[in-house]
Amino acid sequence: MSSVPPLLDVILQRRSRERFDASRPLAVPHLVSLLEAAHLAPSSYNLQPWRFLWTVRGDPEFDRVLLALDPGNATWAASASALVVGGFTRVGREGRPNPWAEHDLGMATAQLVLQAVASGLGAHPMAGFDTGRLRTALSIPTGIEPMTVTAIGWPAEESLPARERVPLERVAVRGSWPPPEER
Amino acid sequence: MSSVPPLLDVILQRRSRERFDASRPLAVPHLVSLLEAAHLAPSSYNLQPWRFLWTVRGDPEFDRVLLALDPGNATWAASASALVVGGFTRVGREGRPNPWAEHDLGMATAQLVLQAVASGLGAHPMAGFDTGRLRTALSIPTGIEPMTVTAIGWPAEESLPARERVPLERVAVRGSWPPPEER
Repeated sequence: MSSVPPLLDVILQRRSRERFDASRPLAVPHLVSLLEAAHLAPSSYNLQPWRFLWTVRGDPEFDRVLLALDPGNATWAASASALVVGGFTRVGREGRPNPWAEHDLGMATAQLVLQAVASGLGAHPMAGFDTGRLRTALSIPTGIEPMTVTAIGWPAEESLPARERVPLERVAVRGSWPPPEER
Repeated sequence: MSSVPPLLDVILQRRSRERFDASRPLAVPHLVSLLEAAHLAPSSYNLQPWRFLWTVRGDPEFDRVLLALDPGNATWAASASALVVGGFTRVGREGRPNPWAEHDLGMATAQLVLQAVASGLGAHPMAGFDTGRLRTALSIPTGIEPMTVTAIGWPAEESLPARERVPLERVAVRGSWPPPEER
C-alpha cells in the first residue's frame, strides 16, 4: 500500500500577497539568502542565465523601480521591503542563444519565492511594468532582459481570495495529447 | 539582532541526479501530487500557461519519450520511473501572445522538482531532446510548445559532483548594474 506524501507547506502557503507591513525592516542578509536559494536552481547546461537586480526600501533605486511599475502594482508594492528585478542573459553555449533562459529564470524565481515563504516573508512576482523605464532607471545593460519584478515583504493582514486554478486534468495529461474535441 | 533563516532543505538537497532505482515502482497518485505542486505555482495574470504530458514506466509513451531524448540523456533517463514533458501555450490575455509562458512553466517545474525531492524522489529537468520527434511521438498539438523533459525516479547510489555556481555577486547586484569594466 502506498500513501501520497503531503504537498510542501511552502507551496501550499504561498500566495501572491498585495499587503505588506512597511514598518518592519528586512535585514539585507536575509534578502540575500533568498537570492542564494534562487541561485541554487537547476538550469539548462548549468548556464545559470538568471540575473537579479535587488533593492531595499530606502535605496534610491527602490523608488525608481516603483515608478516603472504599472500603477496598479505600484500602489501595493510600495509597502514591500525589497524589490527584485528578475532578468536573464540570452547567451548560451558557444555563444548561441539560450532558448531556456526565461524558463530557468522562472525556476530560480520560484525558489526565491518559496524561500521567502519559508522564512515568513511574502514574495509576489509581477509582470506589469514598463521595461524601457526600468532599463533606464537601473542602467540595465543591453544583453540583460528584465522579465519580472518581485515584491518581497512581511505579510500584513489581508483577505486573500480563493485560489483559482483550471482543473489539473486540463494542464496535465497522461500519455498522448487527446484530439481537440476531447481537450 | 537578526539571524538569517536557513535555506530550505529541499533546495539544498535537490541535485540533478542521473541514477535511479528502476526496480522500485512509483505510484501514479504520488506522481500526480508532483503535478499538483507544479500547478500551484504563480503565473503572470494567473494564465497558468504550463502543459504537462506525463508517462510512467510501462506506458508505451514512456519508451517513445526516451527515444526522443539525446542519447546521452536517454541512457540514464531509462532508469527513471516517470517522464514528464513540460510545455506551454503561448496564448495570453485577449488572445495576445504571453511573453511569460516559458518563465511560468519554469516556476511550475521548479515546484514539481522540489515536491519530488520532499517526497524522496529525484527529478531532473532536461533540455536535450528532439522536439520534432517528441511532438510526433506524443501527438503534441500545434499551440503547445514542449520545452523540457523531466526524469523522475527513486535516487540510486551515485557519486554527485560538487555543485558549480558562479559567485552570487555576479548574478545578483544591488541597485544599478555596474559599468561593463566592473562587471
